[in-house]
Amino acid sequence: MKVEIVTTGSELLLGQIVNTNAAYMSQRLNDLGFDVIYQTTVGDNHDRMKEVLEHALSRADIVITSGGLGPTQGDITKEVSAEIFGRKMKLHAESKRRMEERFAQRHVVWTDNNLRQVTLPEGAEVFLNYNGIASGVVLENNGKYLINLPGPPSEMKDMFERSLKPFLQRKFGFKHIIVSKVLNTMGLGESLLETEIKDLILAQSNPTLALLIRPAGVIIRITAKADTREQAEEMIAQMEEKIRQRVGSYIYAANDENLEEIVAKLLRDNCIKVSCAESCTGGMLAQRLTSISGSSSYLDGSIVTYSNDVKTKFLSVDEDLLCAKGAVCAEVAGHMAEGVVQMFNSDIGVGITGIAGPTGGTKTKPVGLVYIGVSGKYGTEVTENHFGGTRDEVRYRATQQALFMLRQYILKNIKK
Amino acid sequence: MKVEIVTTGSELLLGQIVNTNAAYMSQRLNDLGFDVIYQTTVGDNHDRMKEVLEHALSRADIVITSGGLGPTQGDITKEVSAEIFGRKMKLHAESKRRMEERFAQRHVVWTDNNLRQVTLPEGAEVFLNYNGIASGVVLENNGKYLINLPGPPSEMKDMFERSLKPFLQRKFGFKHIIVSKVLNTMGLGESLLETEIKDLILAQSNPTLALLIRPAGVIIRITAKADTREQAEEMIAQMEEKIRQRVGSYIYAANDENLEEIVAKLLRDNCIKVSCAESCTGGMLAQRLTSISGSSSYLDGSIVTYSNDVKTKFLSVDEDLLCAKGAVCAEVAGHMAEGVVQMFNSDIGVGITGIAGPTGGTKTKPVGLVYIGVSGKYGTEVTENHFGGTRDEVRYRATQQALFMLRQYILKNIKK
Repeated sequence: MKVEIVTTGSELLLGQIVNTNAAYMSQRLNDLGFDVIYQTTVGDNHDRMKEVLEHALSRADIVITSGGLGPTQGDITKEVSAEIFGRKMKLHAESKRRMEERFAQRHVVWTDNNLRQVTLPEGAEVFLNYNGIASGVVLENNGKYLINLPGPPSEMKDMFERSLKPFLQRKFGFKHIIVSKVLNTMGLGESLLETEIKDLILAQSNPTLALLIRPAGVIIRITAKADTREQAEEMIAQMEEKIRQRVGSYIYAANDENLEEIVAKLLRDNCIKVSCAESCTGGMLAQRLTSISGSSSYLDGSIVTYSNDVKTKFLSVDEDLLCAKGAVCAEVAGHMAEGVVQMFNSDIGVGITGIAGPTGGTKTKPVGLVYIGVSGKYGTEVTENHFGGTRDEVRYRATQQALFMLRQYILKNIKK
Repeated sequence: MKVEIVTTGSELLLGQIVNTNAAYMSQRLNDLGFDVIYQTTVGDNHDRMKEVLEHALSRADIVITSGGLGPTQGDITKEVSAEIFGRKMKLHAESKRRMEERFAQRHVVWTDNNLRQVTLPEGAEVFLNYNGIASGVVLENNGKYLINLPGPPSEMKDMFERSLKPFLQRKFGFKHIIVSKVLNTMGLGESLLETEIKDLILAQSNPTLALLIRPAGVIIRITAKADTREQAEEMIAQMEEKIRQRVGSYIYAANDENLEEIVAKLLRDNCIKVSCAESCTGGMLAQRLTSISGSSSYLDGSIVTYSNDVKTKFLSVDEDLLCAKGAVCAEVAGHMAEGVVQMFNSDIGVGITGIAGPTGGTKTKPVGLVYIGVSGKYGTEVTENHFGGTRDEVRYRATQQALFMLRQYILKNIKK
């Protein structure tokens, strides 16, 4: 089944908004086994819209529009669609009743303009709108379908999932269903990870495997195609098991779950208090750890120690060491982690010192060099890291690595 | 002049990426006075692409493509374009020379595939690529133009600004030029701001004024249309002057300059050291202040004080006060700001205490209530704020308000 998506609205043609609706609908339709072969955008101009829709109906089996179902005179998608299929417009009683209810709930008075939104082509199948006023419609003629969805993304998406997807299922069945699962990894580069599971990637047909680089680490995407969701999920589970046998210790999450949420859960479940001493990340690690509601249960305090004096005064980092080796070295990261445990009387401390850039790098200590220490009663561990990217990226990656080390430290030493 | 934009590539039709190129080109072309009346997306399929381009040439004066200029067999945009205009493909010497140079610089060997990228339709005007390999081309026939730009956004944008814009200027002149300037405000809500400048908004024709709500505050956008950039800028300057006379103290930046950069500059220029004591923002303010390269010149240290014990121990916040009024009150914010000045021996301290949510709110202290104190030798100032939104938004707005207060404190008391 060939599909053309037609998005309408001058704000798209003026470039004031990016067309996320076309991407959403395309992705979902592909998931359901349909081929999206064209995406077209046209303004709210009667003749141009009519030409575009007629042309689309000549080359696709299903044409899905989004936009132009609002109450203003500029909203004409439904009217032009009805004209093409030779249908009259008629007030739709159920849509009107729901509109009146919605306005009453909000203590707002509706105007005659709003009646346009519930006046629909005769003989159309109607999709009710659970996030707004404008109903969607399906027109059919000689096996060609013209389907009008609303433009606001929340209304379009809800109507797509709630009404259009079951409609397509009923009319066309789905040849197959496609399900993906993402495994989030850290600690192995892309090429090392590929080496470990290369035979699985090469042997792939269904499910398929892909490695993708994300700011938070490398992800492994497993995609399975099957007749039912259950079958697809079973195929994914089998493949995931094989992958975990090889590189399980590097997988910290599935489906892009936040690392801070995972660490927060570990800290809470094991009644651990954490504190951080941050130099180059300047508070970003504390900010990520406290982005979780209820973080006061595992964090009492944290410190940003930019200057050497502050490192010495509050964290007891050795002055001679700072003189001899500078602030960016493994020993200082370790001392910072140990010092911050003392300072806040916490169970685990994290120390971060490095060069975030873009300036301040030298030949021996280049931009991106970051030492991270994690310390507690099971000892102190320090890693040397070389992160690429902008100042923001270096800082983000340093906090990501720190969270990963925190997770490993708890799993290895503490977790019940 | 009517323009149709044709973007190509299966990743768009699969919904794997959002079509930001179409939005960028549309916005810029509208700025230059062209009417973008259609945007079409098609895959790398010879027959479909040919039909789409021919159809586009039948209804627009200028057709601009993006995508499909790469080295693989799937990249066919240039070849299909040449076919439509009856041109042969020929190696382009200057493009090839630049490609060889580029590969040599990177110590990479080019392959025969890459020659496809520098093989161009005969008789085409060529746009050299300063961010990649693939040259762009302009084909003309009977007053209709077909222009191929590369797909990667950085290459497309550079070629648009460097080559396409001057080309369009030369061929068509610009009827007018549109220039916008944004004034960033804080401290007045949208409706109060509107009241102050309502007559200017209503009297608008050219330049026009719009008020828009952004996470960082309300912005005033001034847009002028004129024959030259100089004229447009003069019109904007006059309108800006009128606006500043009324609400100047609420305008902290122009064209979305970051508030952290503005504050960083003030701190640096006036040799001021700052430190923060953060409760609900958990390090976000320190993180924003240290996101600027060179921040060690104005920040030695900063602390996150989540628990009451830590507030008392390091900031000398009065225990009895914490008992009597709780941690979220104006007095505690003031004490935190004063305490952190002592702790780090800084010139100015900022204290933030509040309820970020989503849980933890009460009837008298609801989610979003945040007290912010700024303290230094010119005294201590505290504001009570009620921020809306998610946990992240409350925290972001609190740091935004803190930066704004820091700016005001320096401007009022210290700035030379």
